[in-house]
Amino acid sequence: MHILITGAAGMIGRKLTARLVKNGMLNSRTIDRLTLIDVVAPEKPAGFAGAVELLTGDLAAPGAAAKAAAGRPDVIFHLAGVVSGEAETDFEKGYHVNLDGTRALLEAVRAVGNGYKPKFVFTSSIAVFGAPFPYAIPDDFHLTPLTSYGTQKAISELLLADYTRRGFLDGVGIRLPTICVRPGKPNKAASGFFSGIIREPLAGQEALLPVADSVRHTHASPRAAIEFLIHAAGLTREQLGPRISLAMPGVCCTVAEQIESLARIAGPKVAARIRREPDELVVRIVSGWSERFDAKRAGALGFKAEATFDDIIRAHIEDELGGKIA
Amino acid sequence: MHILITGAAGMIGRKLTARLVKNGMLNSRTIDRLTLIDVVAPEKPAGFAGAVELLTGDLAAPGAAAKAAAGRPDVIFHLAGVVSGEAETDFEKGYHVNLDGTRALLEAVRAVGNGYKPKFVFTSSIAVFGAPFPYAIPDDFHLTPLTSYGTQKAISELLLADYTRRGFLDGVGIRLPTICVRPGKPNKAASGFFSGIIREPLAGQEALLPVADSVRHTHASPRAAIEFLIHAAGLTREQLGPRISLAMPGVCCTVAEQIESLARIAGPKVAARIRREPDELVVRIVSGWSERFDAKRAGALGFKAEATFDDIIRAHIEDELGGKIA
Repeated sequence: MHILITGAAGMIGRKLTARLVKNGMLNSRTIDRLTLIDVVAPEKPAGFAGAVELLTGDLAAPGAAAKAAAGRPDVIFHLAGVVSGEAETDFEKGYHVNLDGTRALLEAVRAVGNGYKPKFVFTSSIAVFGAPFPYAIPDDFHLTPLTSYGTQKAISELLLADYTRRGFLDGVGIRLPTICVRPGKPNKAASGFFSGIIREPLAGQEALLPVADSVRHTHASPRAAIEFLIHAAGLTREQLGPRISLAMPGVCCTVAEQIESLARIAGPKVAARIRREPDELVVRIVSGWSERFDAKRAGALGFKAEATFDDIIRAHIEDELGGKIA
Repeated sequence: MHILITGAAGMIGRKLTARLVKNGMLNSRTIDRLTLIDVVAPEKPAGFAGAVELLTGDLAAPGAAAKAAAGRPDVIFHLAGVVSGEAETDFEKGYHVNLDGTRALLEAVRAVGNGYKPKFVFTSSIAVFGAPFPYAIPDDFHLTPLTSYGTQKAISELLLADYTRRGFLDGVGIRLPTICVRPGKPNKAASGFFSGIIREPLAGQEALLPVADSVRHTHASPRAAIEFLIHAAGLTREQLGPRISLAMPGVCCTVAEQIESLARIAGPKVAARIRREPDELVVRIVSGWSERFDAKRAGALGFKAEATFDDIIRAHIEDELGGKIA
């Protein structure tokens, strides 16, 4: 089993790589080869006995995607992309990376030919949906993105479905809810604060909250996201049918409820490290986002997320902080 | 008022040009300049006193879209595209023309800058929807194309909405039902037979019917399509809101009802000129198409189609056959 991961140097990419190496198998087959590509050099995963190819490059640049697909990987996890905030502030970069990069990879797979038909797992986003919304967004809600990022993800889903239908690959798009708690430094995602208000206080630092406490959102931990990716790679065409992109489950709660969870688990002193500082751009972007999903298909197909936001915070403390709170 | 029409040499392009020249005005302003572009040389319209620029070129080719947009047209009618059957048989050509061509034109408009923000009327298609369908497809039905053509149209709609939201242009996408009766020779559209079974018999010729009589579909005449385009150009951003693409009204009927209309208007001898010859590719493509729409938004915004299929046949006889039946 040969696996290609794009965006391999990113947070999800590194965690997915580590998890695949630890599992040693995917879809009941031994993983004997990994190809990792990112715009910054991916690291060689520790403890992997098989062959590893590390590529540094922009998938949209001439030849880069062809090089990534040349080894005919059996499963492709396409995670590469610029985040929502950056796609909104840098129009050209967003389209270059999120649309042209994805299309280049799809085209590279098609160009291999000779019966080559990899499993292609694409990380889409709930940003493909835009307000106004029903109480809970159903699986068949129409695509109405209100950000360039959401537009690029929706277009990529459409391409993936057409390439799948034409038989060039076997695609599945998972619409990730906001990943929370993201470890490490803040990134440019407009959704970054959802993690920041948990992560920084737990690390003894102040966190800025740019939106109102009443903002409601759906979250899944990095741990759950990795599970989604691995589970998606095992789904058959028959299980998916023609509508290959679907929303993942998550924990739906308000910012106030996130903060209550934090106080419950880490104490009120930690929760008091959150400072309110409204940011108009973030408020505007987030106001067009979905709050709540009825992720029926994902549930029926066996995708599982945490049950409560407390679980999400505990996963972060276990996975990132060695069980300790500052 | 300067108007750009892409796909100007096509059937709708020529009819729209002729109609605009006849009207002399659009949105209460005098039309004093026309730019017409197509892959085959567009003809200079008869009876137009203003300036005409005729361009021959592929919008996706370097520089072509920039040339088309250079004169800062106030209104752009983007009709250029390859039809559904061709986009399905020639994957690369379909994406090149229908996706790359549209994106190149959007990018050319954005590149003009300096406050340039034209009205951009895009001819989308009901092929953005794919089965399974509800009884009547509502305006907020999700985009689930089952053809490459429908995928390309859906992607173009998403791009148009994002370019509009970002303020680069003022877009509106009209999802045309099948245009029937198309005059002239058969084209490569999978939907071509819907016109052929009316047009050829009325011209004294045999027509092939590749699908069952029970196939239900929604139609609008070329005359109605031109009205849709002109009406769309007059809609404001406020009237459209963020969901700028919408299905047009049409006449919903079965192939059997089309044939009954033909027999009623032209006699049973004419209707007997239809020969049944099933075509598996066409049957498969058409089976994924929508049958019936609940085009509420279009109705509320003042778009109007024919009331019956008899009206559609009569429009064809008046507009194309000088009132005579062979």
